[in-house]
Amino acid sequence: MTINGEERKSTIDYAEFSAYVGKEVTVKGTVHSIREMSFGAFVILRTARETIQCVYDTGANDFRLPDNFCENACVRLTGIVAAGQTKDGSVRYEIQMRGVEILSLPAAVPPVVISKKTVQCDLSTNLDNRPVTLRNPSQRAVFKVQEGIQRGFREYLMTQGFTEVHTPKINFKGAEGGTNVFKLDYFGKQVYLAQSPQFYKQMLVPVYERVFEIAPVFRAEHHDTSRHLNEYVSMDFEMGFIENFTDIMNMETGVLKYIMSLLKREYAPELELLHVQVPEITEIPCIKFMDAKTDVIMKKFKYQPTDMKDFDPQEEEILGKWAKKQFNSDFLFVTHYPSKKRPFYTMDDPEDPEYTLSFDLLFRGLEITSGGQRIHDYGMQVEKMKEKGLDPAEFETYLMTFKYGAPPHGGLGIGLERLTMHLLGFKNVRDAAMFPRDINRVNP
Amino acid sequence: MTINGEERKSTIDYAEFSAYVGKEVTVKGTVHSIREMSFGAFVILRTARETIQCVYDTGANDFRLPDNFCENACVRLTGIVAAGQTKDGSVRYEIQMRGVEILSLPAAVPPVVISKKTVQCDLSTNLDNRPVTLRNPSQRAVFKVQEGIQRGFREYLMTQGFTEVHTPKINFKGAEGGTNVFKLDYFGKQVYLAQSPQFYKQMLVPVYERVFEIAPVFRAEHHDTSRHLNEYVSMDFEMGFIENFTDIMNMETGVLKYIMSLLKREYAPELELLHVQVPEITEIPCIKFMDAKTDVIMKKFKYQPTDMKDFDPQEEEILGKWAKKQFNSDFLFVTHYPSKKRPFYTMDDPEDPEYTLSFDLLFRGLEITSGGQRIHDYGMQVEKMKEKGLDPAEFETYLMTFKYGAPPHGGLGIGLERLTMHLLGFKNVRDAAMFPRDINRVNP
Repeated sequence: MTINGEERKSTIDYAEFSAYVGKEVTVKGTVHSIREMSFGAFVILRTARETIQCVYDTGANDFRLPDNFCENACVRLTGIVAAGQTKDGSVRYEIQMRGVEILSLPAAVPPVVISKKTVQCDLSTNLDNRPVTLRNPSQRAVFKVQEGIQRGFREYLMTQGFTEVHTPKINFKGAEGGTNVFKLDYFGKQVYLAQSPQFYKQMLVPVYERVFEIAPVFRAEHHDTSRHLNEYVSMDFEMGFIENFTDIMNMETGVLKYIMSLLKREYAPELELLHVQVPEITEIPCIKFMDAKTDVIMKKFKYQPTDMKDFDPQEEEILGKWAKKQFNSDFLFVTHYPSKKRPFYTMDDPEDPEYTLSFDLLFRGLEITSGGQRIHDYGMQVEKMKEKGLDPAEFETYLMTFKYGAPPHGGLGIGLERLTMHLLGFKNVRDAAMFPRDINRVNP
Repeated sequence: MTINGEERKSTIDYAEFSAYVGKEVTVKGTVHSIREMSFGAFVILRTARETIQCVYDTGANDFRLPDNFCENACVRLTGIVAAGQTKDGSVRYEIQMRGVEILSLPAAVPPVVISKKTVQCDLSTNLDNRPVTLRNPSQRAVFKVQEGIQRGFREYLMTQGFTEVHTPKINFKGAEGGTNVFKLDYFGKQVYLAQSPQFYKQMLVPVYERVFEIAPVFRAEHHDTSRHLNEYVSMDFEMGFIENFTDIMNMETGVLKYIMSLLKREYAPELELLHVQVPEITEIPCIKFMDAKTDVIMKKFKYQPTDMKDFDPQEEEILGKWAKKQFNSDFLFVTHYPSKKRPFYTMDDPEDPEYTLSFDLLFRGLEITSGGQRIHDYGMQVEKMKEKGLDPAEFETYLMTFKYGAPPHGGLGIGLERLTMHLLGFKNVRDAAMFPRDINRVNP
């Protein structure tokens, strides 16, 4: 029987090396690579967030590497910190090795090379071998940046009086309108996997006024594209007592500004490794859907749309170029989408009910957010459901929200993988998913 | 076309009232209750986190309430802040009403009374009417505290160098051993809902060294008890390069200490409303499984166990009492559970392989955590799988983690609802689930 105490710190992080030049330190990590040299070897040690060059000099001291020392061994390594200069003049610390203790050994050599700057295989092989390929410093940097994005979303909203919630992913029919839902047998009942927390976050507006959730959503979409996943992480918020639907856009502008500054401040090593420039956000310009269609796409860019109620990918690209040129902005809000193309809970524009108080956010010409004001009046919502061919009786618990009083409100959802993809300049969303789920892939 | 700016603050929070005594303020909120009085009425306004008493005095000024003013209306309310004293001598601010603007109206009176201290119905009716009952201040306080718990878990681990990850919930067979998994048709393939992020968090240890996840898990357990949910939020962490499995327990002690201090610091109004005393944690005592069985349960408490390999609920209760009496501790670690009762990835104790380097954490005599050191050696893990009757071929991607090198590691999982339940003194875990999923309930 013992009493446990506080965790003690037995090893030193790379970030603290400047205080240890000429002194002995102990670090724990994985042998990332070994390059044999005439004097001995360069050993690259991979730690939680860094790779550290360690010099094994057979002429300098009596220390000899153990016979079983190999790549992908986990070790405790002791040595003297030395400061050197890189080509760009910055200081880089290395360790002159004095001792190694093997903590664990691999059973085989990895099937793909992970010790180069990038993983040496195609995307499909990379994904098949995710437990190994994610160990590559560039690969893991992608998902460290992704951590920063969702963290920024959360941290900013916490400062704005939002409550973080966790809503159920196994849903009954009335919480999941629409097609493309995964069906599930639940003790003999047919249930559905949540394709969005939409209904639940609306239910919680009269409870907490402002709520957000970061959680998986599931879409049974059959198409196999570079933009779609069948499971992804959705960052959603919903806010009550709004004066106008632009309140939601202003909140999103604040969120994105905060995310970008957080990335610059705390994720610089990863951004550098990935050669990524984080966009500057001051204000995000807005344009109405029909103005974008007619003034920008048709008149300025001489492009003839096939659908006047929606944008095709080429039109989004045009708008991205236009926003960059006109406002020097990577982001563009497009507002007032046609009522026919938006979900039944979207508030129509009282000034022109053909259009809605809704918006999309384009980031470098690609949609990353859909949002808008919601209907909060019970009678209006019931009418709208009927108009759209839905049966209000199926949505009884959802409709309680409005029946017993709800403030004017609205919100949005941002796909975490898609935002990561665009920020990092990937062409395929699978590059921005740790363990992507698509029509052909559920493993690993 | 307009350029959006920053969000502006048009209303005042209750927390700022002390600076506005005698001055006019505007607040937004929902009419929680109206109590008619000889002089007019007391109106309780419910805001995001408070209820504010507003005085409607027909004799004091020319202002008259609108005819459609009613309970559950959402309003913008103007008035003069006045300071009063409560029975216990603390200052309480109220508003002398001068104006009301109706923002939205309910369509009906709620089916249950939510304006009293507690919701006036049984649990089942409460859960049936969640969009309404959660508006009760005590009810919403439960899930505000729950926010604090998961926030504390995250914030503490962030300070300890952990990376937050999001792993897939749709899993292939090799990621989900065991029974009690929900099956799902996935484009013609049979797949499973994650019952834990176990395999994924282990895969990510060689990537980030320390990872955590807060996410839903799914268990198709058929029993209908007061302790089980079929979907719940699991707080998991996994840490590499441990010296000993007690490193994991020390980390959990740190997590729990931080959570409790965060609750005291930032969730005091909710704790007060719920009459909850947050436990003091200094150190958490430990006892070995077999010592607990023989010395405490059998010798000290004269209780005869039916199973020498596990505890029944009564034995856990005995241990809870013992920990309180012996150490004045609400928490107790029980370590070295029998190997037969732990999953195949658990590390056996090298000193006695009948037992494992594992632990449970009991909180007031109820289990809230299972954790331990994992096997990190490929050969050992393959052998163990065969011993347990599992086919290593089915776990090929999981086994990559060890085959290509993994450090000594371990971790744990804490059920968020269960911890909330015990902290708040509930008898039924459904009281601690916003929208519980059990064998009979998926709605709302």
